[in-house]
Amino acid sequence: MKQSLYYIPTLKEAPKDAEVKSHRLMLRAGLIRQTAAGIYTYLPLGYQVIKNIEAIIREELEAIGASELLMPALQPKSLWDESGRWADYGPELMRLKDRKDREFCLGPTHEEVITEVVRDIITSYKKLPVALYQIQTKYRDEMRPRFGLMRGREFIMKDLYTFSATEAGMNAWYEMVKEAYSRIFKRCGLSTKIVASNTGEIGGIEAHEFMVMSEVGEDTILYSKSSDYGINIEASDQKEGDMAPDGSGPLFTGKGIEVGNIFKIGTKYSIPMNAYYQDQAGEKKPVQMASYGIGISRTLMAVVEEHATEDGLIWPESLTPFDYHLIPLNEVDDAVMEVYHKLKENARVLLDDRDERPGVKFKDAALIGIPKRIILGRDFKDGRIETEFYGEKSTQSLEGFLASL
Amino acid sequence: MKQSLYYIPTLKEAPKDAEVKSHRLMLRAGLIRQTAAGIYTYLPLGYQVIKNIEAIIREELEAIGASELLMPALQPKSLWDESGRWADYGPELMRLKDRKDREFCLGPTHEEVITEVVRDIITSYKKLPVALYQIQTKYRDEMRPRFGLMRGREFIMKDLYTFSATEAGMNAWYEMVKEAYSRIFKRCGLSTKIVASNTGEIGGIEAHEFMVMSEVGEDTILYSKSSDYGINIEASDQKEGDMAPDGSGPLFTGKGIEVGNIFKIGTKYSIPMNAYYQDQAGEKKPVQMASYGIGISRTLMAVVEEHATEDGLIWPESLTPFDYHLIPLNEVDDAVMEVYHKLKENARVLLDDRDERPGVKFKDAALIGIPKRIILGRDFKDGRIETEFYGEKSTQSLEGFLASL
Repeated sequence: MKQSLYYIPTLKEAPKDAEVKSHRLMLRAGLIRQTAAGIYTYLPLGYQVIKNIEAIIREELEAIGASELLMPALQPKSLWDESGRWADYGPELMRLKDRKDREFCLGPTHEEVITEVVRDIITSYKKLPVALYQIQTKYRDEMRPRFGLMRGREFIMKDLYTFSATEAGMNAWYEMVKEAYSRIFKRCGLSTKIVASNTGEIGGIEAHEFMVMSEVGEDTILYSKSSDYGINIEASDQKEGDMAPDGSGPLFTGKGIEVGNIFKIGTKYSIPMNAYYQDQAGEKKPVQMASYGIGISRTLMAVVEEHATEDGLIWPESLTPFDYHLIPLNEVDDAVMEVYHKLKENARVLLDDRDERPGVKFKDAALIGIPKRIILGRDFKDGRIETEFYGEKSTQSLEGFLASL
Repeated sequence: MKQSLYYIPTLKEAPKDAEVKSHRLMLRAGLIRQTAAGIYTYLPLGYQVIKNIEAIIREELEAIGASELLMPALQPKSLWDESGRWADYGPELMRLKDRKDREFCLGPTHEEVITEVVRDIITSYKKLPVALYQIQTKYRDEMRPRFGLMRGREFIMKDLYTFSATEAGMNAWYEMVKEAYSRIFKRCGLSTKIVASNTGEIGGIEAHEFMVMSEVGEDTILYSKSSDYGINIEASDQKEGDMAPDGSGPLFTGKGIEVGNIFKIGTKYSIPMNAYYQDQAGEKKPVQMASYGIGISRTLMAVVEEHATEDGLIWPESLTPFDYHLIPLNEVDDAVMEVYHKLKENARVLLDDRDERPGVKFKDAALIGIPKRIILGRDFKDGRIETEFYGEKSTQSLEGFLASL
């Protein structure tokens, strides 16, 4: 891809109201742009990283047997009346009327819609379990949208719903998804702690949150360094320095960004919404539901927060929007294009073909954050290139480098 | 993928209000499910085909130098006031207020948002052209939602916007995109006619629509068999049997489903929204804009309409959700799983592992429409399989078949 055609509007200064590092950096690096308070446009570079996160999520969820579907954002009030959530939900639920005065909301979650999708199909134990997920735009009218993608009003989520015949079946899915989540975040270059939480607006029996430890997190967590689990400080009488209950070491205090949450719902929706099945003995029973979310746009923000450098960021290899950033410092001639086409055979390459000074190109490259940079400078005519891979600089022969690919 | 886990709720009968073939078939084959009038859930099989259409669109648009971004569905009234469209648009525009009483709409198109995204960046001829597209959910509060995905209220669109310095530049993009569109629809197994149209709610200088000829189309078209172009009968004094103006043969009458539209907009948005650039002489000029849509969910519907058979459908190879449908008629034992794993090495395979009678499996297979079916029947134990590829049946040795892959 030629950089002159790829729209990356880097900025010298971030707008003043951007308070946290990742938010400033995402604006400066041309990853996102604000359209209204808490409502963002994902520019090509940022959206490419989003798509890379989505690909990892799809792989891990399909590996455990979940299938992808897409539900609407517009949800009729009638469905929310069935579960009782139309009355329960506060002003965070965005509501509107259609031209015939029928009421709808813009979905913050899809428990009602998915239950309606499956309830007249899963009427026998033979049709269970069902595990369906979607990657979709969600809405939540936050009182104070802030920190860029951290607390937005329109955001991208992955939501997964499992329907099982028994509580044991639900619990098995819960554990399987929990492990898949750990793999997903790890592959995204994030280390997370799993924290028990209350069930909030989703409801149910038990819930956990996946927290990325970060100074801009909104929750305070006690954690030990060698355990995957943490404790929400508000729900505990333990304190920093105490031994972790699982004996994994002393507890530290940190702040967490919630990037995922999982809920053992049980029958909260299936009973009022009439999602029952016949078991092997012919008895009618409510299905056991669980739901699982990943904030995809918030995950992007957490990745930027964690991978920021002094003058930009360096993407983890799994998420980088391009494999190589090819930066010619002089004219983009046939010799440059030959290197570009050679690299493109097996990799995704961004070619900085802009008519800009080297200083501008280097500053932008640091912001854009592609981990492997190839600089075609003064010695390029003599067959030598400079490389900067994950911050490590070296000079080498072009021929040797191309042969090593 | 095991069919027992993949959610394909086929139906014996379509709901009575489904009027056209494709709508009935999409409901019966478990591709979609209605959530509210004109609002649908795409079930796994239908959504997989949608993703295949999207992949073709991405390939063809990136080949001509366009980059993908994602804009929000929620758009502030303030932007629509800048263009004047807030007042111009009728009740099709879905409007809502947030908790602080600020007004928003759910975007039917994104001319205002994209102009805001680029206007303070493209201030010099050096930054032009810019070509940006998105694949996104759109809203239009139709008076009479009907024909399933044909006239929905929430639907999936690809929209592309080009910004050029000159009219000649805009025209060059217009022709390039027009050709890309013909390739996209052809790859989706659709033959289209290009018809001049009025510019409607988008506005501008000139517009064309891409029409799939079909008995359920909503527009009446005059066309000749050997030309890519057609004529809207309402905009012409020609009639069936006349010679086509380009001399390509006699005119026929047919109905068209509009699957794409393209608009030479010019300066309708750039002047009121202040999207100006400095040309080489230092003169300030408004950018020349064009916009281009593809109705992705409607394209899916047109594909189903065109590829329907007596008892189901056969997907075109480019869009099929799986490469092979593997149908064992007896027990799913180790020998069956061996064939499944062998096929899976190089192809996407749906294994009908359900405990169902052969008749049920065949009926579902016809509805699901995977063009290549492999039946492991009576002779499977003797190393023979039955294949049905695009309706053509044969019996062959398993060994020979696997060796031919």
